[in-house]
Amino acid sequence: MAAAVAVAEEVSVLHGAVVVTMDGGFRVFRDGAVAVSSDRIAGVGRSAEVLAAFPRATRTVDLAGRILLPGFVNTHVHTSQQLARGIADDVDLMTWLHGRIWPYESHMTEEDSYISTLLCGIELIRSGVTCFAEAGGQFVSEMARAVELLGLRACLTKSIMDCGDGLPPNWSSCSTDDCIQSQKDLYEKHHNTADGRIRIWFGLRQIMNATDRLLLETRDVAQKLNTGIHMHISEIPYENQLVMRTKEIDHGTVTYLEKIDFLRSNLLAAHSVWLNKPEIEHFLKADVKVSHCPASAMRMLGFAPIREMLDSGVCVSLGTDGAPSNNRMSIVDEMYLASLINKGREAYISGTTNPTALPAETVLKMATINGAKAVLWDNEIGSLEVGKKADMVVVNPFTWSMVPVHDCIANIVYCMRTENIESVMCNGRWIMREKKIVNLNEEEVISSAGKRASNLLARAAIKLPERMNCL
Amino acid sequence: MAAAVAVAEEVSVLHGAVVVTMDGGFRVFRDGAVAVSSDRIAGVGRSAEVLAAFPRATRTVDLAGRILLPGFVNTHVHTSQQLARGIADDVDLMTWLHGRIWPYESHMTEEDSYISTLLCGIELIRSGVTCFAEAGGQFVSEMARAVELLGLRACLTKSIMDCGDGLPPNWSSCSTDDCIQSQKDLYEKHHNTADGRIRIWFGLRQIMNATDRLLLETRDVAQKLNTGIHMHISEIPYENQLVMRTKEIDHGTVTYLEKIDFLRSNLLAAHSVWLNKPEIEHFLKADVKVSHCPASAMRMLGFAPIREMLDSGVCVSLGTDGAPSNNRMSIVDEMYLASLINKGREAYISGTTNPTALPAETVLKMATINGAKAVLWDNEIGSLEVGKKADMVVVNPFTWSMVPVHDCIANIVYCMRTENIESVMCNGRWIMREKKIVNLNEEEVISSAGKRASNLLARAAIKLPERMNCL
Repeated sequence: MAAAVAVAEEVSVLHGAVVVTMDGGFRVFRDGAVAVSSDRIAGVGRSAEVLAAFPRATRTVDLAGRILLPGFVNTHVHTSQQLARGIADDVDLMTWLHGRIWPYESHMTEEDSYISTLLCGIELIRSGVTCFAEAGGQFVSEMARAVELLGLRACLTKSIMDCGDGLPPNWSSCSTDDCIQSQKDLYEKHHNTADGRIRIWFGLRQIMNATDRLLLETRDVAQKLNTGIHMHISEIPYENQLVMRTKEIDHGTVTYLEKIDFLRSNLLAAHSVWLNKPEIEHFLKADVKVSHCPASAMRMLGFAPIREMLDSGVCVSLGTDGAPSNNRMSIVDEMYLASLINKGREAYISGTTNPTALPAETVLKMATINGAKAVLWDNEIGSLEVGKKADMVVVNPFTWSMVPVHDCIANIVYCMRTENIESVMCNGRWIMREKKIVNLNEEEVISSAGKRASNLLARAAIKLPERMNCL
Repeated sequence: MAAAVAVAEEVSVLHGAVVVTMDGGFRVFRDGAVAVSSDRIAGVGRSAEVLAAFPRATRTVDLAGRILLPGFVNTHVHTSQQLARGIADDVDLMTWLHGRIWPYESHMTEEDSYISTLLCGIELIRSGVTCFAEAGGQFVSEMARAVELLGLRACLTKSIMDCGDGLPPNWSSCSTDDCIQSQKDLYEKHHNTADGRIRIWFGLRQIMNATDRLLLETRDVAQKLNTGIHMHISEIPYENQLVMRTKEIDHGTVTYLEKIDFLRSNLLAAHSVWLNKPEIEHFLKADVKVSHCPASAMRMLGFAPIREMLDSGVCVSLGTDGAPSNNRMSIVDEMYLASLINKGREAYISGTTNPTALPAETVLKMATINGAKAVLWDNEIGSLEVGKKADMVVVNPFTWSMVPVHDCIANIVYCMRTENIESVMCNGRWIMREKKIVNLNEEEVISSAGKRASNLLARAAIKLPERMNCL
């Protein structure tokens, strides 16, 4: 067993579990245990050994063969878009953005954002997520309020833009200085709050909405404050074409960002679909992290070179994107998709699919330790190791959806559904226990979300066409 | 309201639901009802009208805004492979077949097959399926026993092969005559049993395991008995290449099957991934039905030309394939995947994904009325219409996974999870009610399945490599 840290406080021992540590040695304890003291892991190992190491444990819980995993990290989530689920399905990208998402986001109130984050947070918890990276919304203080209540861990980010065509009126007025200052203010106000569960990152929507000055000042300020930058990069071929045309370079966004020396190890590049080989090398060299969002990419963007990135050593993690792009906000489903899609994509490279591409263990790594690295928090989360924060998921595999369990790791990635996620702990506290969300009244949030969503669509004058003959 | 049929028996009226009929006019009743008498639908329409038409209804149930859908049809399921879930993940096709699936299937007992079908049936019911087409196993009588108990509707099929290399010893001895006779016997014994819920189809594993005589006699006998043929067709490029080489034709399996006049409207072609344009035309002309299995295709086969088939008028339905190919046996997930994958596939045709490809209403059609057509049963199932069999699904959309419901049809396809499937009726009887499987003890099946699966793998000497460092 790993050595126990000195603990003055109460200790809980969860034992009798299949403990999938995702530590450096990828140890799995068939009959394993994790000891938790305050917000940290105090012991990990075989059940008998951990129980013996903590003879005065305040609580011991027999997990009876359930699976214990590190909490999943969702590295690209638009929490403010949860109320927009279903408003932009099956439409082209321009309708998606100009006809639906921008009207929606620009008519949102602070309270809408709060409720949207709560609703999204419930879905995140129910899919085993303990930490997420916000992709960028308007009301970060409201996100922070929701995250504090939910008990989650998050890197929150404001969506900023200092240029670009066709933006809603109340968005286009932001100067570069205002953009930077507003993020500094948020950092001052919220960074390291909620028992250290909330961090503030710097956000850049995409290259078409950022001047060079904004890019480079963001780089410098984020570095000085020792925090991260979250940006959508190389989403669609048009983006690369525009960058090539306007910036006089031979490929897309990544080539340009490398040219202006923007790429750093604290950059989280969302999507990164249309990268060529030299651009993958740029990412690797600068240690840029990637958030792969399989469902969203399949639907709207394309097939990212994920296998090539992983093969070259780039840190690739998993994200859900926002509800109008996906619409299931579930890392459980994204794991399943990541493996399937990247196996299938090989058909276009070699003529046949490659069922060995992105095996289950690689996908599980993407959802845990790689996620932790992507959000610059792997010193404290992403694996079950002594001294790390106690962020954990309890999975019940003894149901129709996972039985038989011949290959535990494969079943986690390919068979597990949100239904199998039984309990979730973040920062040493249960935030879902036996399928009950602990810190808030779920039904009230759902009811409120439904009403607010309808009102918001009415205010934004978004009207969806009927798909069938509604009577 | 559609005219009520004369009813002598008890009538139940389910009202207050969003009734998605999937009838010829694609009518959706926002506050709708369905009346059920014995095994059939006696009324469909607005709640007030249906309630008024059946003033002496024995039972009225207020569904309080839930969604009522036709039962889903899963048109390609290997029920015998359910105990093999997880035995062949992330391995190449040859290992998959020779190292895992054939040893598994050839060591299976009749009782294994029965339990496997029960476990698979539970997953089918929980994903809203009321009718399925078996893809072909060994012990059809055991499948029939399980289907009768589960309360499902099914087209059962024996997997037959009269030629081919590398088959397990106890399979390779079947002569063409024996192959045909064994299927005739099964037809005699089980066709139209279990209150008409079970039909027997003729099975052909794939072209590499069927002589021309077997193909053509199967065609003739099935036609004479007025039943269907289920066959895997054009799964991998190698299959087409082999057919081209050995049969001297210019493309793959479909070209050859057309040449020998095998294609008929009672043929259900599973997968159909590697078809060219003339072959799609052959399918259309003969009215061959297709079972598209998105997950299985992504993982092992490739990107089928589904949009092109649908555009040309071919009837395309949805299947899950077997547990070692997928591993979620859920039409709910296949609907989500079908839309995503076929949107993404367009990136390889036009350079960008097409978010408008395979819209939600098309996918829902594939899972319901097209499924019914594919199994040659659309005169009785696939839509909610007066006189059809009462095969229905009750969906609860008021949960974290589906709220807000701005676009009901889109949310069914993109957001709904098995968790939202609350109750399922087949042939006028509830087979799942408020998430409880009605006709069998689910826990006993799960427990028995786990033990049998372990024993079977031991007998077949299938040993899976460890993926991580198991201690």
